[in-house]
Amino acid sequence: MTPAPKSIDLAVIPGDGIGPEVTAEALKVLRAVLGDDVALESTEYPLGAQHWLATGETLPDETLTRLRGHDAILFGAVGAAPGDTRIPSGLIEREFLLKLRFSLDHFVNLRPSRLFDGVSSPLADPGAIDFVVVREGTEGPYTGNGGTLRGGTPHEVATEVSLNTAHGVERVVRDAFQRASARRGKLTLVHKHNVLVYAGHLWRRTVEAVALEFPEVTHDYLHVDAAMIFLVTDPSRFDVIVTDNLFGDIVTDLAAAVTGGIGLAASANLNMDRTAPSMFEPVHGSAPDIAGRQIADPTAAILSAALLLRHLGLDAQAGRIERAVEEDVATRTAGRGTAAVGDAIAAAVS
Amino acid sequence: MTPAPKSIDLAVIPGDGIGPEVTAEALKVLRAVLGDDVALESTEYPLGAQHWLATGETLPDETLTRLRGHDAILFGAVGAAPGDTRIPSGLIEREFLLKLRFSLDHFVNLRPSRLFDGVSSPLADPGAIDFVVVREGTEGPYTGNGGTLRGGTPHEVATEVSLNTAHGVERVVRDAFQRASARRGKLTLVHKHNVLVYAGHLWRRTVEAVALEFPEVTHDYLHVDAAMIFLVTDPSRFDVIVTDNLFGDIVTDLAAAVTGGIGLAASANLNMDRTAPSMFEPVHGSAPDIAGRQIADPTAAILSAALLLRHLGLDAQAGRIERAVEEDVATRTAGRGTAAVGDAIAAAVS
Ligand SMILES: CC(C)[C@H](C(=O)O)[C@@H](O)C(=O)O
Ligand SMILES: CC(C)[C@H](C(=O)O)[C@@H](O)C(=O)O
Repeated sequence: MTPAPKSIDLAVIPGDGIGPEVTAEALKVLRAVLGDDVALESTEYPLGAQHWLATGETLPDETLTRLRGHDAILFGAVGAAPGDTRIPSGLIEREFLLKLRFSLDHFVNLRPSRLFDGVSSPLADPGAIDFVVVREGTEGPYTGNGGTLRGGTPHEVATEVSLNTAHGVERVVRDAFQRASARRGKLTLVHKHNVLVYAGHLWRRTVEAVALEFPEVTHDYLHVDAAMIFLVTDPSRFDVIVTDNLFGDIVTDLAAAVTGGIGLAASANLNMDRTAPSMFEPVHGSAPDIAGRQIADPTAAILSAALLLRHLGLDAQAGRIERAVEEDVATRTAGRGTAAVGDAIAAAVS
Repeated sequence: MTPAPKSIDLAVIPGDGIGPEVTAEALKVLRAVLGDDVALESTEYPLGAQHWLATGETLPDETLTRLRGHDAILFGAVGAAPGDTRIPSGLIEREFLLKLRFSLDHFVNLRPSRLFDGVSSPLADPGAIDFVVVREGTEGPYTGNGGTLRGGTPHEVATEVSLNTAHGVERVVRDAFQRASARRGKLTLVHKHNVLVYAGHLWRRTVEAVALEFPEVTHDYLHVDAAMIFLVTDPSRFDVIVTDNLFGDIVTDLAAAVTGGIGLAASANLNMDRTAPSMFEPVHGSAPDIAGRQIADPTAAILSAALLLRHLGLDAQAGRIERAVEEDVATRTAGRGTAAVGDAIAAAVS
């Protein structure tokens, strides 16, 4: 157990689009729930697509070093408007977001999926949905390995290499078993081992080996394609899903959709060894089309702040935010603005 | 246009589990719709998990050569029972199913997704779903490239290499544009180019280049994670999806789920250059748990037979099967057996 801190030194990266709006509400709720018990100091870092346009910087080494000094990072969203051709495609995602996750060794990308009372699912008969996805965050097909041979010619060959290590797989699998043990005791490995044999074999063997340490947890396996089917026909079958970086990306967006949309989906990029600060961000992107209009839902950002408190050992306060969100979404009326949602939840946790 | 044949020399691979049952119904419907107009000759090939257990053969060269001599291949399903440890995991899938797709250059894996009247979707408000997925079938992460270093040690590294070629991407993208042009004129590329930059760049550039040949087709792009969301919140937005082998596997199972399940999902593995026979198979697997009980739904196999006829230039007969299936599923009563479904559709097309 991490002892509960007396103060939190937070880095805040509001980012682009709706990022600043939703982050402001998450901060508001954090201040409200911490009150005078825990001192909250926050430093804002201007980073993201707008920052790149203004300065040409994505994530300078010096900034990364300063970020390392904080207790945690609260992150909004980054990304250029879809039509903005001034920004090379994917640049901000790779040179900033993925660079942060990789540099700070965020090996557990934790994404809870819960269908709250009062939230409508696109599924006709969703049942009780309450699972977490433990997505590997530092390797797999996300390592940027690969290349292009004879680019732009009829003989072009483009490769992408998925890198998987015993070290990387084992630590995230163990984390997933720990979470399953503290929840309903059920873990599902999602992969595609019948085709991706080398990586698949490593993942399966690791799950079998780590399972021996957790006799109280049952585990099963689903190919990623079969997992798609269960996520829409029987999502209540899941408790903890553990999977690689790319499958995790795919599974968690579908999971967010069936639980009422990415406006409610929180995530944590965790360095469970605590050798660097963890980072907390809504699953959604910067949504430039609705930015600045106070219509974005800050709930995902607020729930990400709850994950932040839990990671820092402030479970009681995290629980208060989660219960306040639960009550708020159960009675929510359409058309309430971004700040109004934050105000309501902040009032409830004060 | 292919001239309509006067005879069809068919290879039939019933396979394992429910494969033989559903293939028998597809053949019944084929014979009924062809009547005396087109002579149907069929040769059965015993292949699959059971055959491997009995003989140790997956797909001998000699069998592959014989298969090449047929006009088309009708395929049921292969695969061991989940608990059967005698069969190395994934062996039949790779050494038989994928080997066939790769050897016979099935570069278009065509998977139509349609929500038929009378079929219930797990979605509360599915809307009109009618799209086709054009999945690349001969490269991407399915090439078996990759390896294991220091296997079984704490220093293990396992790699999977996705191989993408201009040749492979261009031919499938052109096929997808052709299909979009003959449908509602809308093509969506699904990839993850912000992370998988090398392959993503090749796919995007190819789509942009081929698009110039099809001014009547509009095209857009979705990251695979965003595609997950749209497939459950707004599936009617899709007309033709073109994507790589792995994303196609994932997208088509989700598409099958939202259109009422894999019992209805047909697929075609097409060699559009016609240098080798194409292969037609239901998306579902061998379902050993329900095998031999005459309770499997043969509709996916029957719709795959319709795709076979269309590929051979017998559009009128293909259309008759599809209309008969439409009428049958609209009025279908629960509990009808496998053969009864086949009988009803065969009677309707005779
Ligand atoms: C923006 C992108 C690189 C990112 C990812 O693929 O991880 C996003 O989709 C997510 O899920 O956080
Ligand atoms: C069995 C497996 C190799 C196959 C695939 O991944 O292509 C199946 O899932 C499919 O979609 O036809």
